[in-house]
Amino acid sequence: MPTLVLIRHGQSEWNKKNRFNGWIDTRLSEKGMTQAREAGRLLADQELRIERAYSSVLSRTIMTINRVLEEMGQSYVSQEKTWRLNERHYGILQGEEKDEMRAKYGEDQVQTWRRSYSVLPPAAPGLFPSVVVDGQTYPAFDHRYAQVPYGLLPNSENIQTTEARVKPFYENKILADLKAGRDVLVVAHGTSIRALTKLIEGLSADEVTKVEIPNGEPILYDYSNDLTIRQKTTLTTKD
Amino acid sequence: MPTLVLIRHGQSEWNKKNRFNGWIDTRLSEKGMTQAREAGRLLADQELRIERAYSSVLSRTIMTINRVLEEMGQSYVSQEKTWRLNERHYGILQGEEKDEMRAKYGEDQVQTWRRSYSVLPPAAPGLFPSVVVDGQTYPAFDHRYAQVPYGLLPNSENIQTTEARVKPFYENKILADLKAGRDVLVVAHGTSIRALTKLIEGLSADEVTKVEIPNGEPILYDYSNDLTIRQKTTLTTKD
Repeated sequence: MPTLVLIRHGQSEWNKKNRFNGWIDTRLSEKGMTQAREAGRLLADQELRIERAYSSVLSRTIMTINRVLEEMGQSYVSQEKTWRLNERHYGILQGEEKDEMRAKYGEDQVQTWRRSYSVLPPAAPGLFPSVVVDGQTYPAFDHRYAQVPYGLLPNSENIQTTEARVKPFYENKILADLKAGRDVLVVAHGTSIRALTKLIEGLSADEVTKVEIPNGEPILYDYSNDLTIRQKTTLTTKD
Repeated sequence: MPTLVLIRHGQSEWNKKNRFNGWIDTRLSEKGMTQAREAGRLLADQELRIERAYSSVLSRTIMTINRVLEEMGQSYVSQEKTWRLNERHYGILQGEEKDEMRAKYGEDQVQTWRRSYSVLPPAAPGLFPSVVVDGQTYPAFDHRYAQVPYGLLPNSENIQTTEARVKPFYENKILADLKAGRDVLVVAHGTSIRALTKLIEGLSADEVTKVEIPNGEPILYDYSNDLTIRQKTTLTTKD
């Protein structure tokens, strides 16, 4: 009977610096790489044979899924990398320090942008503006999006619009794999995993805003063959 | 104009222990992981935009290609993992210490098995026997080969038979990509890269037995648009 594993990527360099990441492509921190390997070791103890492995096109999920599969001894599995599993686009907040944004716009406004189901942060100026942080330029557009229809690319997203672009991938790929009896591994981001959780568990808009997804802790959904959820388990190294 | 990059995986745990690896799935050593990252950093300084990334289905090439693409900032590229780029199957030698085999069969015999174009080492007993080394069992068959037609799976190989199974992949994938103008990255093994070198450069059987491929040093073939080789360059951190 199939199992779906969801993992939020390990700590990124900007999670550590308390900056809004969004679609800006930052790497895992050393701690993030350790979290990824630990997640892989936890999963190696389960009876899983992953047949499909999905991540976003951002380095922090790819670096995580690579290490998870390596530690599971299943690195030969085919991987698919899709923009539909990206973190939400954070509009003008991308690249900014969380504390500075709170000082500038107020605690309540920033919290609303972060957690509201349907309020959009102000759109970024242009689809993919570069961001300069600590003297380094992070180009926000590159060839990973070359095949995506222009009209689908966002310049600001909330949970609702993230859910809308995650949904076709969930239905056409993840659900189809589970129906075929396959164990599936998905490594994604805080908001794209919230959206997936809503779709999987049938949560309300209000419920999904309260879901917390820790970095690098595998969430397992065990399905029966008719795709009802038999059990949900979160693996953690913490006692 | 397209570029083809060939890299032999970084040092594996068994390269370090001086054992015959073949199709046994060993991991990169710490040194091997460092070599992989260095190869990626060398390539990051080149003007390359990889559009296709190919490795074998063995962990040591996958762990290498993951780190190379991460360091290049191009981890989003689609990867394909194929048994056709595997190391040669080493027959009864797989898992054995090189020195022990020399003591048992003689230096000349072992050297012939290692380097002859057309002499086959004695076949392994059964297609995929497990090997126990230092108390650990290495299962030599697993799901990575489930889709390969049984009649194609070897139980011993030399350069010639390796070349025969590398050739369709070279022609149908690598050469087709280069014709389409794409930069291609291939991470493979000593013998599968020798076979590729023979196909790319049109070497004789005698010449290919003399080709040395160091671990983790990128070999770049720059092509003109009619697919003649303009330049071959090997990148190395050594002075």
